[in-house]
Amino acid sequence: MDFLSPYVQQIEKNLSELSLPKSPATLYDPQRYLLETGGKRIRPVLTLIACGLCKGDTQNAIPAAIAVELLHNFTLMHDDIMDQAESRRGRASVHLKWNTSTAILSGDSMYTQALLQVHKIPEDVDYKKVALVFLEGINRVCEGQALDMEFEERESVSIDEYLEMISGKTSALLSAGMQMGGIIAGSESSGIEKLAKLGDTLGLAFQIQDDWLDIVADPDKFGKKTAGDVFEGKKTYLMISLLNSCNKEEKKWLLNCLKNKPLAKPDVDKVIELYKKYDILESAAALKDSYYSEAENILNTFEESGYKQDLKQLIETLKAREY
Amino acid sequence: MDFLSPYVQQIEKNLSELSLPKSPATLYDPQRYLLETGGKRIRPVLTLIACGLCKGDTQNAIPAAIAVELLHNFTLMHDDIMDQAESRRGRASVHLKWNTSTAILSGDSMYTQALLQVHKIPEDVDYKKVALVFLEGINRVCEGQALDMEFEERESVSIDEYLEMISGKTSALLSAGMQMGGIIAGSESSGIEKLAKLGDTLGLAFQIQDDWLDIVADPDKFGKKTAGDVFEGKKTYLMISLLNSCNKEEKKWLLNCLKNKPLAKPDVDKVIELYKKYDILESAAALKDSYYSEAENILNTFEESGYKQDLKQLIETLKAREY
Repeated sequence: MDFLSPYVQQIEKNLSELSLPKSPATLYDPQRYLLETGGKRIRPVLTLIACGLCKGDTQNAIPAAIAVELLHNFTLMHDDIMDQAESRRGRASVHLKWNTSTAILSGDSMYTQALLQVHKIPEDVDYKKVALVFLEGINRVCEGQALDMEFEERESVSIDEYLEMISGKTSALLSAGMQMGGIIAGSESSGIEKLAKLGDTLGLAFQIQDDWLDIVADPDKFGKKTAGDVFEGKKTYLMISLLNSCNKEEKKWLLNCLKNKPLAKPDVDKVIELYKKYDILESAAALKDSYYSEAENILNTFEESGYKQDLKQLIETLKAREY
Repeated sequence: MDFLSPYVQQIEKNLSELSLPKSPATLYDPQRYLLETGGKRIRPVLTLIACGLCKGDTQNAIPAAIAVELLHNFTLMHDDIMDQAESRRGRASVHLKWNTSTAILSGDSMYTQALLQVHKIPEDVDYKKVALVFLEGINRVCEGQALDMEFEERESVSIDEYLEMISGKTSALLSAGMQMGGIIAGSESSGIEKLAKLGDTLGLAFQIQDDWLDIVADPDKFGKKTAGDVFEGKKTYLMISLLNSCNKEEKKWLLNCLKNKPLAKPDVDKVIELYKKYDILESAAALKDSYYSEAENILNTFEESGYKQDLKQLIETLKAREY
């Protein structure tokens, strides 16, 4: 996504100039380590674009964008402990490279660093408003993660509950970052509401697409093995749709499989067959497409600008991704 | 400490009216559970008193006081995981009653709830200033906890390093809460600086006293067994002083003991003998007394008021505590 590189370079430059303290090393080294491992920086880019969309100077939104990226990395550090993830972006996860205590505490500190960044927005911006949007976003992220963990223990989850969960886990921070960009640009509340909805919708589209790609993506390009989520018995959009669509006997068999993770290859194959039998993949594709269309419709209500073109192109690129 | 009950009742009333959401239960139930287990509520009481000391209406400082108490409980929830503590205030710690993931995430949410409370301070107070003091306090708490964990792995720790550590771990939140109370009262910066110093000094006094009571307290009243810290091989003020005072041979023996925790009874007895040999207990008592005196001296510079009398009595009570 070369068209985003001016934004990404801004973010990288500012991340490299963060100058977190050297000591205590066990507090700050893991934060540096995780930030250095990169990532696509989509969230902070969206914060900058949202500011530009509302005719603001994107330079003013840089501290908010950095705050969003730090917050995102804090959630990764803690989520990796909860998910017992061994690696992140090709490197050992913090709780394995150091230990769980260090990952907990370093994450807490990274959360604090994110909030301290928000203090750096220009003096004439309503700080309280920006901080509140950010905190409410974080609150939704925590709720989404809690629901995700609860769903893994539950037999029955509705599609609406699943959407509520990913709207917290994935959308909330995109949405908060975009709203922060808009507030910093001095946009009025109707504009902020549109940005909130745009961020939410993009998050939903992206997450459902991710669930769908687990089956349909080219594994070499996707960087994960095909049906990895099924092997892990994860309650994705596909799995929840299947549980809500299949017949009683299939459901009984499926719930039994989910109790014995990881699933065996023949069971995974059977799940994929059931996805096909009940048109689950088509339903997921249609839902993600409808969210992407909704995002595009909202974007079309903004005035023309280079930022609008960039976001349009970003949405098209995300929509077309096959991995 | 009956003279504090009007403050404590205010805090309890407001905590009981927090009305955290019911769902997700795994996110909010642990927070309710920990808040219900009580605690002395010293931190929020000091926030209210600081506001009163500066001639402010303590009602205005209630959200800040609640924020401080929530933040304190967040640190307890995460610290208990790091310390593998099995109980807290006589009940199972959150990570054992639920599990580690729940305690991590519920703690993150409690941190967020604390920050959301700060949004409830009156409109005419400089919110940005209050939020910054709070965040910088939290930052120091994280650094203190990181140093504490690092020191446990290190052979040599200086007294200055130890004081830096407890100034983060114990003083920072007292100090931040008192400053928040002062800012809300509309105090000028010289007043805020005095409150900062007062909170810092009280924290240092309290922590060194706690280390000292580990040996000298009546175990029935203290609620912990005598020399519990020594059995655990903890790097308290006493232990660090001893490592910095004893001869080479004793140091070698001591470091060896600390490598094999918990210590055996005869070794603990020998450590206590060494404390006596090197006047470590007297040195700790003198240091805590000097911090308490410093706190009293700072307090004396404030104008007379009922709040000043209450804080005076609180310091006297803390100073005299034998458990």
